[in-house]
Order: sequence, then structure tokens, then C-alpha cells
Amino acid sequence: MTNNKILAKMRNNQPARGVWLGIPSVHSVRLLARLPLDFMIIDMEHSPTSLENMVNMVAAVTSSGGPQAVVRLSQASSENIKSALDAGAAGIIAPMINTREEAARVVSWAKLPPIGSRSFGSSYAGLTWGQTPAENARISNDQVMAAIQVENKAALDNLDDIFSTPGLDMVLVGPLDLSLSLGIDFFAGQPSAILDEAMEAILAAGRKHNVPVGIYCPSAEIARQRIQQGFLFVNVAMDTTTLIEGVKQALQVSETSIREE
Amino acid sequence: MTNNKILAKMRNNQPARGVWLGIPSVHSVRLLARLPLDFMIIDMEHSPTSLENMVNMVAAVTSSGGPQAVVRLSQASSENIKSALDAGAAGIIAPMINTREEAARVVSWAKLPPIGSRSFGSSYAGLTWGQTPAENARISNDQVMAAIQVENKAALDNLDDIFSTPGLDMVLVGPLDLSLSLGIDFFAGQPSAILDEAMEAILAAGRKHNVPVGIYCPSAEIARQRIQQGFLFVNVAMDTTTLIEGVKQALQVSETSIREE
Amino acid sequence: MTNNKILAKMRNNQPARGVWLGIPSVHSVRLLARLPLDFMIIDMEHSPTSLENMVNMVAAVTSSGGPQAVVRLSQASSENIKSALDAGAAGIIAPMINTREEAARVVSWAKLPPIGSRSFGSSYAGLTWGQTPAENARISNDQVMAAIQVENKAALDNLDDIFSTPGLDMVLVGPLDLSLSLGIDFFAGQPSAILDEAMEAILAAGRKHNVPVGIYCPSAEIARQRIQQGFLFVNVAMDTTTLIEGVKQALQVSETSIREE
Amino acid sequence: MTNNKILAKMRNNQPARGVWLGIPSVHSVRLLARLPLDFMIIDMEHSPTSLENMVNMVAAVTSSGGPQAVVRLSQASSENIKSALDAGAAGIIAPMINTREEAARVVSWAKLPPIGSRSFGSSYAGLTWGQTPAENARISNDQVMAAIQVENKAALDNLDDIFSTPGLDMVLVGPLDLSLSLGIDFFAGQPSAILDEAMEAILAAGRKHNVPVGIYCPSAEIARQRIQQGFLFVNVAMDTTTLIEGVKQALQVSETSIREE
Amino acid sequence: MTNNKILAKMRNNQPARGVWLGIPSVHSVRLLARLPLDFMIIDMEHSPTSLENMVNMVAAVTSSGGPQAVVRLSQASSENIKSALDAGAAGIIAPMINTREEAARVVSWAKLPPIGSRSFGSSYAGLTWGQTPAENARISNDQVMAAIQVENKAALDNLDDIFSTPGLDMVLVGPLDLSLSLGIDFFAGQPSAILDEAMEAILAAGRKHNVPVGIYCPSAEIARQRIQQGFLFVNVAMDTTTLIEGVKQALQVSETSIREE
Amino acid sequence: MTNNKILAKMRNNQPARGVWLGIPSVHSVRLLARLPLDFMIIDMEHSPTSLENMVNMVAAVTSSGGPQAVVRLSQASSENIKSALDAGAAGIIAPMINTREEAARVVSWAKLPPIGSRSFGSSYAGLTWGQTPAENARISNDQVMAAIQVENKAALDNLDDIFSTPGLDMVLVGPLDLSLSLGIDFFAGQPSAILDEAMEAILAAGRKHNVPVGIYCPSAEIARQRIQQGFLFVNVAMDTTTLIEGVKQALQVSETSIREE
Ligand SMILES: [Mg+2]
Ligand SMILES: [Mg+2]
Ligand SMILES: [Mg+2]
Ligand SMILES: [Mg+2]
Ligand SMILES: [Mg+2]
Ligand SMILES: [Mg+2]
Repeated sequence: MTNNKILAKMRNNQPARGVWLGIPSVHSVRLLARLPLDFMIIDMEHSPTSLENMVNMVAAVTSSGGPQAVVRLSQASSENIKSALDAGAAGIIAPMINTREEAARVVSWAKLPPIGSRSFGSSYAGLTWGQTPAENARISNDQVMAAIQVENKAALDNLDDIFSTPGLDMVLVGPLDLSLSLGIDFFAGQPSAILDEAMEAILAAGRKHNVPVGIYCPSAEIARQRIQQGFLFVNVAMDTTTLIEGVKQALQVSETSIREE
Repeated sequence: MTNNKILAKMRNNQPARGVWLGIPSVHSVRLLARLPLDFMIIDMEHSPTSLENMVNMVAAVTSSGGPQAVVRLSQASSENIKSALDAGAAGIIAPMINTREEAARVVSWAKLPPIGSRSFGSSYAGLTWGQTPAENARISNDQVMAAIQVENKAALDNLDDIFSTPGLDMVLVGPLDLSLSLGIDFFAGQPSAILDEAMEAILAAGRKHNVPVGIYCPSAEIARQRIQQGFLFVNVAMDTTTLIEGVKQALQVSETSIREE
Repeated sequence: MTNNKILAKMRNNQPARGVWLGIPSVHSVRLLARLPLDFMIIDMEHSPTSLENMVNMVAAVTSSGGPQAVVRLSQASSENIKSALDAGAAGIIAPMINTREEAARVVSWAKLPPIGSRSFGSSYAGLTWGQTPAENARISNDQVMAAIQVENKAALDNLDDIFSTPGLDMVLVGPLDLSLSLGIDFFAGQPSAILDEAMEAILAAGRKHNVPVGIYCPSAEIARQRIQQGFLFVNVAMDTTTLIEGVKQALQVSETSIREE
Repeated sequence: MTNNKILAKMRNNQPARGVWLGIPSVHSVRLLARLPLDFMIIDMEHSPTSLENMVNMVAAVTSSGGPQAVVRLSQASSENIKSALDAGAAGIIAPMINTREEAARVVSWAKLPPIGSRSFGSSYAGLTWGQTPAENARISNDQVMAAIQVENKAALDNLDDIFSTPGLDMVLVGPLDLSLSLGIDFFAGQPSAILDEAMEAILAAGRKHNVPVGIYCPSAEIARQRIQQGFLFVNVAMDTTTLIEGVKQALQVSETSIREE
Repeated sequence: MTNNKILAKMRNNQPARGVWLGIPSVHSVRLLARLPLDFMIIDMEHSPTSLENMVNMVAAVTSSGGPQAVVRLSQASSENIKSALDAGAAGIIAPMINTREEAARVVSWAKLPPIGSRSFGSSYAGLTWGQTPAENARISNDQVMAAIQVENKAALDNLDDIFSTPGLDMVLVGPLDLSLSLGIDFFAGQPSAILDEAMEAILAAGRKHNVPVGIYCPSAEIARQRIQQGFLFVNVAMDTTTLIEGVKQALQVSETSIREE
Repeated sequence: MTNNKILAKMRNNQPARGVWLGIPSVHSVRLLARLPLDFMIIDMEHSPTSLENMVNMVAAVTSSGGPQAVVRLSQASSENIKSALDAGAAGIIAPMINTREEAARVVSWAKLPPIGSRSFGSSYAGLTWGQTPAENARISNDQVMAAIQVENKAALDNLDDIFSTPGLDMVLVGPLDLSLSLGIDFFAGQPSAILDEAMEAILAAGRKHNVPVGIYCPSAEIARQRIQQGFLFVNVAMDTTTLIEGVKQALQVSETSIREE
């Protein structure tokens, strides 16, 4: 891309808002990419999104001219990062990073030399940005977002180490996995002082090291709160729950008519 | 299936409610099939639903034990009806039927001899119903819904002929195509006496010939109204619009937070 | 192909034996294509075989150098015949042909001018035969098998008309659909004088008009009997039933061990 | 689309130049869509292009902002035209049209009422044009190209009837099928007075009835000649032959080095 | 799942019997899932089973209400285990585990905190079990089978270490790879004292540490023997060989008829 | 395969010439596999080639009887090598190998015991070679090419260590990544003494340790030069650039005609 809107917004201290995609379909992506979103997260970790799905979904997002495509990897690895960036993604998010060493490896795989060790070679990466491969290579290190997830108590002891990793563009909190590792029942939806404390520590590390912090949000209302709390990268919706809740609501709206009869 | 719930409900003068599927994904179908829906319409006419999509979507719906799968054909033809019923669909809807001859052909393709001329031979049709091919063949004519769409002014002159077609299980109104053919701007959303009259005529034909009438509904509120009006087969939601509207709403909900800052 | 082995065998009054494919998988096809079969039938009528499946399955069969690929169409149509022959199939079988007019249309769609009206233009049809498009065009009318199914009582009155259709290469009996149309319970597996008579009439028409007759066989034992009866194109197995019966048998063989304990 | 560049060029008597796609791949399409082409023809007749391929290929072409997508149908039918236009194609080409009745049916299936009988209803058709469904419906009849192929001697007697079909936007000559039907060996590449005469007659009919005429071209050199001859819609290349010829040439260029050793 | 039948049987010292799937097809799976099998192994190591295949195959198995789905991983890794369990698999089998460290890592990836480090987050995992994500999370550690393969002589020295890995639910012997690593020609089918001794050692380790032992079986007869020998998880058939052997047999049965003539 | 032509040629000091595949399509592969190429490289690192694509592409190449299939891995790993060899590939190329340890691991994963630790078990690997699994296992270590890429300055210090790795069959230079890591602007196309020196060092290491050296070539002219320079494994073309350049040229050729008017 010629301009990573997500990075631009976050650097301006403005929240980047997007949608989390759990349905591996280029068709739902095409519909949503017309909305005023900053990003769309193509989830390869907890959704059955194949390489082929991902590549086509990234192209659908980026060619819309609207939101930018971010790929949440199934696991931090060189090959997973290569395929996402070769597809033209504006950024990657590596899950479950607990140490600086792991964080540094993610950055290295996501950045070309001399910063990192990313291999270059796709005929496709620059297409949706209207770039030749040469142009794409030149601009990549500036514009590709290398992000990681902090979502395990093992990472909480290493926050300074992790956040000071050179080249790290964003840290995303995974509240469900973090809760699980802290022994908190995420699904109960109860406030938890332990979880709140952990989040504050993460946000503080972000402020200290000037690294924007984002978070997965299970609802728009929670997204609203997270933005106010200082998170700069939030999904305001997830496609799967939006669909389920929307149809549930439609069943209620339309059911009243039966009672009226 | 051992029992077509859609037909059972309609015969009891109870509305069958479902969801219209414009996203050709087995994954969104699996999520929605857990909701208390009577049917899910797999649309092959105006959605890019391939044979492979349809077959997997029908299996996903039927194996949920909840709603039943109805396939809206891309066009009335023997091969299209065969593939839907061989996949285990509980019914088919043939679009744009304007004459009794066309209606009769649809019924014939959907029913085995001696009623119709459907060819039998799938190893898969009965699987989700727990039936052997022999059992499936025996039960099919009773349980498969053969439906057509009335959605063109050309059909309005033939309502008696069409509705009296033997074996016809349901007539679905297509309000958008019907509006277009009547010179009405459907998208304007204005009341239209001409359209209302046409719909009343169709409902009347249904009552006269004891054939349930359904209708495509663009929203849950309209579905509520249509049920009260006497339509017995309505979609309370469509996946595509549910998704778009849900994310739009999430953008609004979460945006207030920014203003508050 | 440079030499249609199926036609050659049948012209020599030798039975061509093959396997009927109900599993749309290029992988099972690749495994079976190494067996000494004369043909493999890719079924698009009663199996969920997409265009993409068919094309890859035809290539897998023909490139094995062993059996030849025959496509059973989902319905007789110009486009269905074109796609099968463009994929390199050695023949097509059109289901449910009841009149000479229908049979003649199938032949016309399957043969290039001056015999028929088939359109030419694939870059792929000749590949597995090692032919350029020009070579493929030259040889096609001689080597492509144009076959139809007789499987409805409506056809029994027209046997002479149907069998004398110029260019017709084979007639395949569909015993299940024929039984259904004759009011016979095919699944009961009982002998039926009416069915036997119909088959004899079809075989006689074949002998009279010098057109080979084939038949779908539900088991190897029945295939054996049909060959003795004079049928020249028989499937000795179907992949779906072979798989089911084989695993059932394995459950029995291995279960004895538990009883022994 | 807001503006059909193909129609605009042809109405200006300027040749529209494109590429013919025989490889059903969204990836090769994405690469080529960055070239200064007027159109890309997605061939569903003689290439193994599935519905899913076509839909993704059309989106890839149109979202490039460059060439426009034209779908050559596997056969003229309502469902084939619907799926192409619902995918957002700028036009369709129906093969093997021999009579005015057939031509009129194609136009009717491609145009919404009151001109034709096309059914409307896709959530996707307008996406790549940035249109809502309502906007897309309003603009379609003006902007969608309804074209047919004249490629059989049966059509040569009906040229006046065919070319005067109201709403017909372009006639494409299929020189290979036309040659076959005229008994000419197309692959020999010899000049043919009979073929030349047929083409002149077709061009003359186009001039008389003010309908642009296009033609399939097997090479860029022939495309050059056809443009000079007055054809207004020509493919300057076909992907399959471009690839084969390019690799052949590379083998020659690189082989000299071995001889030098 | 609410109840892992495989674990239940093995804990009762009853053999769990299943089928090994080498054909990556949801269709063959659907057919076989109606048989009284305890499990179906979806092989991602030595079969071309893509993520998409696996997800659909797991859903097809589990939604049948019969056998349970076990995924044999292409390699032990966090991402491979996540995708299998997110799809709803009842268990995973990691190939080629030679040390306790490797075994412990597999268990950790397969179990949620506090036992392991598995990440949670799928919208789909609980669907076929009728569970909400919360219910699925709660039940997973009890019900998901974490299994490994011992199939290399490098593992034979570490049997005590491996078998005493906490949380290990089953050890599957891979006789082909074990033979290769021991220098035995598995394909010769000769008895081997060395191999027998290795197997006895593995079975003994299982008894000592109360971990059930399974084994890949190339035939039903061998499965019978293995069950008697004390193996508690055996495949009684493999789809690929069942198909090949079944068609070979059909060729023999039907060939006699030709000789008789 | 019964005879690895690539290895045979290189051992004879003859250059093996092939084509690099960046379009993940079985169809373009089928077309090109008829040309006199020694190999076709299925690229999984920088092209969106899924497992399913790769498996079908390998089968298409090998079943052509012409070139042999080589898979460039997305990353060196046991699972990636297994899937390529199980598909029947004649060789694998692991990218970005910088140390002897990494090289040795690649060889180990690609060779069966006693040489390496590759796991055996595919029903498909030997099919296109006409081999039973037993035959395929016996011949694999002799015939499968285990190759690596040297493409980073980190590797330049370890050339002797890397090239002396036992069982290493070929080393492929990646000039783009090598340039990037050396701080050279590859896309500028300027001669670079540093790059030339690095290549000479690699060629020298190859001669010293008797390991053939190959190189990625961006054009046929460069391939010619590389062969003269002593590289024994070169791609004379890449499908993506061949296609783009070919269509660009066609636009030029055909455009002259417009000017002439
Ligand atoms: Mg997480
Ligand atoms: Mg309609
Ligand atoms: Mg039949
Ligand atoms: Mg043509
Ligand atoms: Mg093994
Ligand atoms: Mg490289």
C-alpha cells in the first residue's frame, strides 16, 4: 500500500476500528469492505481460513479501496508471514507471543533486510496497491504493520522486554486466552480485578515504549469502552456473532406478529 | 427427511420462518442452523452458490437437526432439481414461473413416478435423514416440497391455471422482480396500489386452490407484516443484509465513544 | 484419444468393463485408474460432481494410460456435452432419452460438423492424448462415443426410432429409473417379468440396429450375468458401494476377535 | 459500472482490445488486469471455468479499475446470463446464435424490464462499481453489453434478421466454428474465399444495422489486420497460447547457449 | 463432544475400531459415517487433506452422530492442533514423537490452561456437539484425546519417559515407519522378531503407565489379531485399499462370465 | 519416478532447464507440460499455491511423461517435504538455508531411513511413476532430489559447511534475496561486483564439493548466460512474466494497426 491507514491513525492517537472475520468467505468480505472501516482482520488462527481463502480475502479487502487487510496468523512462522504479506496484507498479527525473542522473530520475518530477514518474491503483493514488485519492495518496511498478541500470563512478566522490541508496530491483547491463563472464566462476563490489572499493565507498557495497543472486542459496546480506555486498534464487530445476533433479533421481531393473530 | 416440517407447518396454517442465504458458505450456515428456524434457503439464482457449495450447505443444514434446507434454483430445469434433491434438500423453489405448463414441469421434475418424471439414483440424498436409498425413494414424493415463484406480470393472468397445478406445494412471491415487471420502483420503498393488488390476487388464488403462499421479505419487520397478511413461508432475515446492517450499527455504537473523548 | 478402446471392444462384441464413480474425487480416481478397467464413468447426474471435479477426474483417468473416461451428463445439453468433451472425455452418456429427436440432438451436440453441430475450441481436449487442437478436431468424430440412456417406459415405444438414430454409439439401460417408471420396486430385488421383457426388447433393438447396449450394474455378480446376457458396456463396481461394503466386511472380520477374547 | 468503456469505444468507432482467458485462474487475471486493456473475456464455453472461478475473475477484473469483464457463456440461457451479470460483468457473449429468435432471447435475458425479462436480485453486482443494488438496477440496461456469436453457416442466411434484433450490442464472429460449419480447415491457416465472403457479409450487416462486429483472433498480428478490416472488438492475445509460445521462445533463446559451449 | 466414546471404550479396556481415511473427500466420509464405527481418522500426514477438507470432514463425521473424528496431524505443531480441535475433532494424533519433551509439547498444545497452553477461540468447535463456545471450553480438557505416534527406534529408548507424560491419552504405533527405522522391509510382510519385540515393549509401557496403545492396521485380519494382542485403538480398514481391493475383486467376479461364454 | 532426469542431466554436466510456476493452476501446468522442459517448479513460497494446488499440479506434471515436478517449499519443514514427496514430486527445494545444520535437516526430512528420517505412507506417491508403494519406497532415496537455496549473506560464510552436507543434491541461488541481504538493489538491474563475487564463491563451492548449482533466472536471456557460467539448473521462463510480457507485446503489435488507419 502507499499509505498504511492503520499505522497513520494509531500514530495520530486515533483509534483504528475494524471488523474481525471468522467466516472464511470472499463474498461476505466484499460486502463489508464497502463500509467505513479502517481494517478487516482475516483470522487464520481460530477460523477455518485456508491459504486460498486468505489470499482472495486480502485481495477483496485491499481492492475495495476502503479498509486495509490484516492477517491474524495461525501461528508465528516465517511461511505464515510470507504468505500474508505476499498476498498484499497491510499487516500481520502473530498470536501468543510471550517473550522478546519471539517478538523479535516476528518482526524479523515481517521486515525485509536490512531490518529483518523477510524473503521477497511475490508477483502479487503490490498489485492491489498499483505497485510494481520493485516499488512494493521499497515501501514494505515502512508500511507493513508487524504486530503480536499478548495473551498469556507468561508474557506479563516480560512486558518491558516485549514492548521494546525494535520494529514492533502494535500489540493486541487477547482477552479470552489471557483470562484462561489467569484462571478467569471469560465467558461469565464478570469484572475481574486481575484481568483489569493485567490490561492496565499492558496499556502502560505501550505508553512507555510508544507502541500502540489494541484488543479483541466481543461487542460494539465493549469496543466503545476499550477505545475510551486508550486502546487504538479495536474490532467493533465480529462477522459470526453479528450474523447470529442479527438473525436471533429478526426471529424476535417477526415472532410478535404471530402472537398478535 | 422423515417429516417435512415446512409442509407440516403450512398445512397447519402456521407460518414457516427461515433465513435467506446469499453468502455461499458452509460455515455461516453451520452457525445459523442452531437457531430455531424452520428453513434455510440456499439461493442459487442470485448468489454465487456453486454445486459444491449447495451440496455442502444442504448437508450442513439438514445434519443440524434443526431447520430444513430449501434450494432456490438458478433456473427451472431437470438437472438443477435433481442436484438439489440428491443433496438431501427438503424442497426446491423454481424462479420466474409464468404458466401452468412451466409449473407442471417443475412438479414433474421434483416428483418420482408415477406422479412425475424425476430420476432417482443418489447415494447421498437420504444420508442426513438416516435413510437408505430405498427408504428415501419411498418417502420422497410425500415429503419433498415442490415450489415455484410467481414474480412477473405475465403470471398474473394465469393465477388459476398455475395454482391448480397438481402437486404444487407452495408459491413464493418475488416482490422485486414483480415490481420491476409492473413498472414499480421497488427500491423506493413506497406503497403501491398496483403491487398490493397483485399480491392480494396471489394470496386469493392460494386460498382458492389451497396452496400456501410465501414471500421474500427484505426485513424482519416486513416479515412480521407479511405473516399477518397470510403469507405462510417467509424469510425473517437475509444473511447479507443482516451482516451489513449489524456492522453499520456497530460502527455507530462504537463511534460515540470517540466523540466523548 | 487416438483409439477409443471402449468402441473398439464393443465393435468386437467384447464387453467393456468399468467402474461407476459416485465419489467426486480426483484422488480415488487416480488410485483406481491403475486397475485393468476399460472405462471409468464420471457421474454428473446423481453425484455431486462439479465442473471442476469432472475436468480433473477426466484428466486423471486419461493420463493414466489405462481406462478411458466417460461422463454421464447431469442432463442432455449442448453445454454439458461441450465441457465433457473439452475436458478430453472419450465419451458422454445422456440420461433419460425417450425419443429419436432427443437422441439425435445428443449426437449432434457430440459430433463436429458436418455430422453434428458441436462447437470446437478447447486448448485442453487433446492434451492427454498428446494431440494438438488440430489433431484433436480431426479425430474427434471417429473416436468420441455418443451414448444415451434408455430408462423410461416412454422410450420403450420408440426403440426402433431411437436405435436407428445415425451416429448413436451406445445405449445404456438405467434399470432403477426404468423400474420406477414401470411401477416396479427396484430395491426389493425381486425378478420382474415386465422388467425382463423391457430389457430383452432393448437388447433386441440393439442387435437389430447394430448398436451396442450397456447397463448399470449394482454388483459384480449382476455384471457377470449382464455380460452373459449380451450387454457390452457394464460397470463391475461402483465406488460408493464398494467402499461401504468393504468397510462393513472389515467390521465383521475384525469383530470376531472380540468375541474370541 | 458507471460507464461501459467497451460500448463507448465501439460507438466511437474505436476498436476495443482485450485478452481472451482460457486459464480459469483469478491469479493470472489479477496480473493481466493491470495492462492497458479494454476488456478481458472470461470464457465459460471452451475453458473449464466454474461458476466460482467466473465470479472471482469478474471481481478481479472489475476491481482493478482497468479493463472490463465480459463473460462468454457456455451456452445461451437465463441462468448463465444471470450469474454473469450478478457477478458484475460488463457484458455477456452468447455462443452459436443462428436465428433472430435466439438473439432476441439473449437480449431479453440480459436486460431488465421493460426491455427484457432479466431477473434482478444480487447483493454483489454493483459492488465493484461502488453502486447500491438500486443504483445498479437503474443503470444496468444502459451499460450492460448483450452480445452474441455468429459462427455457423445457419446464421449466414439470417444476418439481417439477427442484426436488427432490438437491443443487440455486438456480434462476435467465431472463425473456427464458422470454418468448421463451412467445411473449411481452420487449422491449415490457408486463405479461404468462402470464409472471407462470410466475414464481409457479417461486417456489412453490422454497418447496415449499426451493430459493432467483433472477432476472435488467434494472434496479435491477425488482431491488427482485423481491426483494419473494421472489427471493433478484438482479443489481441489469448492467455494459453501466449504462455505456450512464450515458453517455447524462452527454450530457444536459452538453448543457443548450450550450443555455444 | 459431550462424551468421547473412544476414550470411554479404551478406559473400559474395550477396543475402539475405526477406519483410516486416505481419500480427502467429505462425500466418502458421509457414506462411511453411517456404519457402526467408533472413530474415523482424517489423515493429514500422508494424504493430500487440506485444511478445508479436514474441517468439512470433521463436521461430516461428528454431525452423523456415529463415529468420532480424529485428526492425524501432518506434523506436531500448535497451529495444526488448533485447527483440528477448532473444527470439532474428538482427538488428535501427532506423528513421529521420539521424546518426552515432544510428547509433552503435544499434550500442552492440545489442552487448555491450566493443563496446557492451547489457545481458545473458535466459533465452530462446539457446534456439532450442540455446545456454546463456553460449554465447549469447559468440557474440552476432559474429552479431547491427545495422542502421539511412536514409530521410530529413537523412541524405543524413551518409552518410560514418553508413556509417563501427564495428560497423554493414547499412543499409536506406526508399524511402517517403525520398520523402516529398524531396517525391516515392511512391505515383504514377513514376521520380524525385532519388530515384534519393539511392539511388545510398547504394549508393556502402555500397561505399566496405564496408557492405551493403538496401531495402524493394513487389513481387517491384522486388525483382528492386533485387538487380541491388546491394542485398543485399531483401524479395521483404510478407504484407499478397501476401494482398490474391492474393485479388483469385482473384476475377478465379473470376468468369469467372459470365460464361460 | 524410475529415473530422475534432472539429477541425471546435472550429473552429466548438462544443464537442466525448466519453467518457474507462479500461477497456481493445474490448467496452465497441463499446457506447459507438453513442452520439452526438464522440470517445472511449483512454487509454494512466493506464490499462493495451496496444498491442493500443489498435489494436482505435481500429478499433472508427472503424468505428462515429460518434465519432472520440483516443489519449492514455503519453508523448510518436515510436513512441507512430506506433502511434496507424497504427491510424487521428483524433488524439493528448501528456501533460505544458511547453515549446515539447516541443510542437514532438509536432507534428513527428504530421505528415508537409514539416510534420513522421512516418514513413509502415501498411497499416491508412486502412482504417476507406475509404482506400488513398496517400489516407491525402495527407489526414493536414489531418485528424489533434495535441494536447498543459498540466498542470504549469512550463508556465504558457511559455504564449505553447507555444500559438504551429505546427501545434498543441488544448491539453488536466489539472486533477489541474496541481493537484498547484501544491500544491492536487484530491481535496478545494474551489474554488481559484490553479487558477482558471491555467485562465483557459490559456484566454486559447488565444484569443490561436486554439488550442482542452479539459479533463479528472471529471463531467458539471463538463463542463457547463467548456463554458460556453469549453472546446471535454470528456469528459462516464469509463467507470470511470460504472460504479462506476451500480452504487452500483443498490445504493441496490434496497436500499430490503429495508427495506420
Ligand atoms: Mg488468542
Ligand atoms: Mg426473483
Ligand atoms: Mg437413471
Ligand atoms: Mg465458437
Ligand atoms: Mg508414520
Ligand atoms: Mg528467495
